[in-house]
Amino acid sequence: MKNSLFQFSNSSVDRRKFILNAVQSITALALIGLKPAFAFENEETSKKPPTVQEIINLILKEGGLTPLKETVDTIKTGNGNQIVTGIVTTMFPTITVIEEAARQDANFIIAHEPSFYNHNDKSDWVNNNSVLKQKQALLEKHKMVIWRFHDYCHALKPDAISYGVAKKANWLPYYKPSEIILKIPPLSLKKLVQHLKTSLGISHVRIIGNLSQQCERIALLPGAWGGQRQVSAVESEKPDVLIVGEVSEWETAEYIRDGKLLGGKTSLIILGHAVSEEPGMEWFAEWLQPKLPDVKVVHLSSGDPFVWE
Amino acid sequence: MKNSLFQFSNSSVDRRKFILNAVQSITALALIGLKPAFAFENEETSKKPPTVQEIINLILKEGGLTPLKETVDTIKTGNGNQIVTGIVTTMFPTITVIEEAARQDANFIIAHEPSFYNHNDKSDWVNNNSVLKQKQALLEKHKMVIWRFHDYCHALKPDAISYGVAKKANWLPYYKPSEIILKIPPLSLKKLVQHLKTSLGISHVRIIGNLSQQCERIALLPGAWGGQRQVSAVESEKPDVLIVGEVSEWETAEYIRDGKLLGGKTSLIILGHAVSEEPGMEWFAEWLQPKLPDVKVVHLSSGDPFVWE
Repeated sequence: MKNSLFQFSNSSVDRRKFILNAVQSITALALIGLKPAFAFENEETSKKPPTVQEIINLILKEGGLTPLKETVDTIKTGNGNQIVTGIVTTMFPTITVIEEAARQDANFIIAHEPSFYNHNDKSDWVNNNSVLKQKQALLEKHKMVIWRFHDYCHALKPDAISYGVAKKANWLPYYKPSEIILKIPPLSLKKLVQHLKTSLGISHVRIIGNLSQQCERIALLPGAWGGQRQVSAVESEKPDVLIVGEVSEWETAEYIRDGKLLGGKTSLIILGHAVSEEPGMEWFAEWLQPKLPDVKVVHLSSGDPFVWE
Repeated sequence: MKNSLFQFSNSSVDRRKFILNAVQSITALALIGLKPAFAFENEETSKKPPTVQEIINLILKEGGLTPLKETVDTIKTGNGNQIVTGIVTTMFPTITVIEEAARQDANFIIAHEPSFYNHNDKSDWVNNNSVLKQKQALLEKHKMVIWRFHDYCHALKPDAISYGVAKKANWLPYYKPSEIILKIPPLSLKKLVQHLKTSLGISHVRIIGNLSQQCERIALLPGAWGGQRQVSAVESEKPDVLIVGEVSEWETAEYIRDGKLLGGKTSLIILGHAVSEEPGMEWFAEWLQPKLPDVKVVHLSSGDPFVWE
């Protein structure tokens, strides 16, 4: 298993902990009809490396996550019984991410966002989708499993995405779990933008607001929460600035534009969807690695898809 | 009525044409329950300037538009019986557009997109929306009527939006009504972007693709058609480039990114929602003015809401 990301540990302590966690989650798993494949294995047989499903079970258990009856967090391609040789976390499982994962001998991608260009990953969302078919063939060639980790990721306490972004922006001293508002040392909107670009590794952003405005109370909503939740957050929290990943322009953008024209204070920074949540999946890899010491967990950034001109 | 946009014409020919058109549309109006307020007026009483509803009726009639049972094209604020002193067409009826319309003595805004930040312009979309309330108060102060002209605008033959964009980009020789593909003289993606920015007055765009790629078959879909229709257009037409106003990043953007990574040819240019359709509402003002010679029709650009950093 040279050059493989999977390195089986000699630590029986870690292994026992894994089994204990797994057994404890049997009740929870029964609720959602997941098969606790290893539940009745003895320690001898459990020496084999974990499967995809065992790792999913471990994440739910270690995260204290209540199984969801309705969730987009399903296995999108491949088999839950597959032995895992290495794990990649990412935002979007792009062709680049899949090929790099395979190059690194990983065969399990945990992705925050869809694999097949629609929220429910329906393969017939567009008939005879040639790009989707080629992607499926590539995944099959590499025996790559993709599990979406979206609803559970945001259900972690703290939300792995907002925590990861706050961590990467060096804002943990101002971060409170379950709150979207961070009160940071005052700085201008221009300097805030510069700080976000530098700390999160973002090349371009879009803004509505006056760059000289002082910002202190910021509402941090990475990703695409939807206009209703974004606007509601501004109405209820009245932050100096709303920081998001993506908006519908006819919703949040026009609301903020009119608000500013009416003399309101809340400005808007749009980071881009992928780059706004990427630090969360990077943090999740750090979260997961110690719980799976025998499987290498790496984060691959899917990055900004755009050229800006 | 000095300084007013409304200038009543002495042309009885124009007035008669207006009345004739109005009478011919009574049957159609009955289908959707609109009150043909002027239908039984004689020529003497019809000398008074037209109301909002009469102008809407005229647009439906002159556009050969079948009344829609379900449409977002409703009066969003104010009264259909209001006498119109002047008309403004725009993309988004922003605070700036409302104030400039009032300054120019216009009291009827025909807007392509929502007034209140959600597709159906529901006032309770977000509870106690302070921006919406201030906007409503401003509209009331100026006795401004807003009618949305979206579904009917796209139902015109040719679609007023795509026609207006093609016209402004000097692409009418390559434009075919009811087709989204234009075959233009080949040029690089970089030069195509420069041409769009210059001709449409756009400062920044986002792109997925190689700027040196040659482009000839372009798919022109201004506005936000939604991922399903955008991706379907690429799958069925296989254009060199898809030009849109707005995307959901997890849909069209990731589809195009993967397509390019798999060696596909279709690139993407995202113009921005407002600026991508603005030439359509500008063209609609040109379309409407000759049909309403006694009412001044002006286009006010709502413009790009963003600062790009």
